[in-house]
Amino acid sequence: MAKKNAFYAQSGGVTAVINASACGVLETAREHRGQIGKVLAGRNGIIGALREDLIDTGKESRAAIRGLLTTPSGAFGSCRHKLKSLEDNRAEYERLIEVFQAHNIGYFFYNGGGDSADTCLKVSRLSESMGYPIQAIHVPKTIDNDLAETDNCPGFGSVAKYVAISTREAAMDVASMCETSTKVFILEVMGRHAGWIAAAAGLAAEEDGDAPHIILFPEISFSRDRFIARVKRTVRKHGYCVIVASEGTQYADGTFLSEAGTRDAFGHAQLGGLAPALAEMVSTELGYKYHWAVADYLQRSARHIASQTDVDQAYALGKAAVEMALAGKNAVMPCIVRGSGKRYRWSVGEAPLEQVANREKKMPRNFITRDGFGITPEAREYLSPLVVGEAYPPYRNGLPQYTRLKNISVPRKLRRRFTVS
Amino acid sequence: MAKKNAFYAQSGGVTAVINASACGVLETAREHRGQIGKVLAGRNGIIGALREDLIDTGKESRAAIRGLLTTPSGAFGSCRHKLKSLEDNRAEYERLIEVFQAHNIGYFFYNGGGDSADTCLKVSRLSESMGYPIQAIHVPKTIDNDLAETDNCPGFGSVAKYVAISTREAAMDVASMCETSTKVFILEVMGRHAGWIAAAAGLAAEEDGDAPHIILFPEISFSRDRFIARVKRTVRKHGYCVIVASEGTQYADGTFLSEAGTRDAFGHAQLGGLAPALAEMVSTELGYKYHWAVADYLQRSARHIASQTDVDQAYALGKAAVEMALAGKNAVMPCIVRGSGKRYRWSVGEAPLEQVANREKKMPRNFITRDGFGITPEAREYLSPLVVGEAYPPYRNGLPQYTRLKNISVPRKLRRRFTVS
Repeated sequence: MAKKNAFYAQSGGVTAVINASACGVLETAREHRGQIGKVLAGRNGIIGALREDLIDTGKESRAAIRGLLTTPSGAFGSCRHKLKSLEDNRAEYERLIEVFQAHNIGYFFYNGGGDSADTCLKVSRLSESMGYPIQAIHVPKTIDNDLAETDNCPGFGSVAKYVAISTREAAMDVASMCETSTKVFILEVMGRHAGWIAAAAGLAAEEDGDAPHIILFPEISFSRDRFIARVKRTVRKHGYCVIVASEGTQYADGTFLSEAGTRDAFGHAQLGGLAPALAEMVSTELGYKYHWAVADYLQRSARHIASQTDVDQAYALGKAAVEMALAGKNAVMPCIVRGSGKRYRWSVGEAPLEQVANREKKMPRNFITRDGFGITPEAREYLSPLVVGEAYPPYRNGLPQYTRLKNISVPRKLRRRFTVS
Repeated sequence: MAKKNAFYAQSGGVTAVINASACGVLETAREHRGQIGKVLAGRNGIIGALREDLIDTGKESRAAIRGLLTTPSGAFGSCRHKLKSLEDNRAEYERLIEVFQAHNIGYFFYNGGGDSADTCLKVSRLSESMGYPIQAIHVPKTIDNDLAETDNCPGFGSVAKYVAISTREAAMDVASMCETSTKVFILEVMGRHAGWIAAAAGLAAEEDGDAPHIILFPEISFSRDRFIARVKRTVRKHGYCVIVASEGTQYADGTFLSEAGTRDAFGHAQLGGLAPALAEMVSTELGYKYHWAVADYLQRSARHIASQTDVDQAYALGKAAVEMALAGKNAVMPCIVRGSGKRYRWSVGEAPLEQVANREKKMPRNFITRDGFGITPEAREYLSPLVVGEAYPPYRNGLPQYTRLKNISVPRKLRRRFTVS
């Protein structure tokens, strides 16, 4: 088999550990120089391939590649670009083949979520559909934890850890002040379609009465009356109430609370978001003093408190992807398989991409309590091992030292430019 | 000198390290059992003294007291209650003396900010004003870093560290996605009257072009035009723009941006806050995709990433307070004194409370760049050592194990109840 180069790209929203997967891909590829030549990374994801904007990862030192293990965000840039079907945008596929051919690319490693799995699947079929021989392997990544076939998704464990810790800490703050000050605290977290991240906040509670007292999931229709009644009851019982709300919290008719807000004097929709909307309800109905926080990107970039389990898994899946390629695999995704014993164990399995692309793993209903405001022991059992271990980055002068790659461009070989639409 | 008991209370907004000061007070007092009997803590601050709601810290194990060193929030509860002057509320002072007398209290340790220093000063004068012999020592604490006489305030270094790290992490996230997604990110931080906390975000930048690109300080009048122009220029130059804004950002006429927002259909002021208000400006004027985060309590309770320097200083000041009491001092506050050398060194000094109470230390104008959007090398030199060192708490099952005290009440000795107004 002639030696081929590999293409690697990061796709979609970045995470605290997607670079750990990159590290796994790059270090493993370097161990097999006999079979894999260079690894060329797409600058800003698949767009980099379409634009022939490639990064020569071979120019990075061994230490820099290792540094990716402790560096958040996407070191090569990421993008949100889903390839259309071959029928709808044949030009994009022809361009990909043009670029791959020019750079002798025979391996395609795509590091992303559900949409990216679909793109990866389409690329994996280029051999049959367009006669270009390529092996495409998907490396899973998403804080949303909604990929099928894998027990959990790299990126999620670290967000889960961050949200659980932040909930515990802020709750202690509120508890110590509630006698004369803030009684209600609302933390808005990510999760447009599924409540995995909000559920993780439930890990903060260890004893009866511990925060969070209310979790709002996208899966459970929001009722203002039930919410207010629960807040009131909680404050009466415990003196304060901590609420963790998924950004996707919605009414029974599917309207997001974050969009159901009021309008300004010019009729513009209020940009306040979910947390302030909930705070206003509490204030109007109960008059309690409140505070709210919106974690936003802080939660998915918080490499300073990443889960060691998450980092280990992210690396392992990057490594496994290369090994699968070397074993001649195509259209597959390495995934996390949970052992059956009582003690948490995991191993790397292999899932066919057809089973992953365009599917969404919902949170099981039995992970949410019957009243819809909390998590069950089943959820706790599933979530708890994913946040275990502290994978601290190195520090200098009190701040984490994250790696900056040189990201040196590969000289272009094609005269034709391509505009990504 | 007859052995006297001590009273300790936490006051005002809590921090990641106020319990480290409590640890310093309690451990040091325990080393001097010959002079100091019990340390009784006020449940929910000074209110606990007025209500005769006292906690017997002697019931806590040595391990639990040590655990305070790594536990955020106020372990005994805090409150916002400023004693009025003797003329305005003599009843409160009489009540304090009644409670102190009943519990043989001769030492008063008050752990708080500027308002609390004033309360502490008033208590220190009870000997002369009301004939009750007591020594009152103030232990400084405030994330706002605005206390006079001390080089910096315990609590600030940890918030500073949290904000600088969060800014760096979120900025890396935005940088990796900006080609096709979010171009402007806004992080709202605390600081109603002074920009110390926002300034600390500036530590995240190490090289030219690094985030944060814009810092908004309460000290600098906000101009919508200048702000928008700077955002536009930054996005053109770097592809993205990260803004860190003090909650106290205000227009030249003193109106807070967070309050200058629009009103809803019922005429209620919008509760959206500063970050969404800035986001709306960016969206309206420039059309860039944006995200925003509000750190709120997360920033002041983030013990998981506390500054070691901050923890050390918080403990040292608690310890010094007890030592000052033993040395017969009254109406003083142990403070941080910065050494003059190039390498950062600090020691504990002593400040008269009269110099601390009701004074506010502003951020020097030369800490802010001339254009008003950044910090100067002077600011960096001042801030940088305060965030050094990582004082990680212990973890269990992936989450920090914070100490819960038993907080056992001291039996009441007085028949009279007192209602705090």
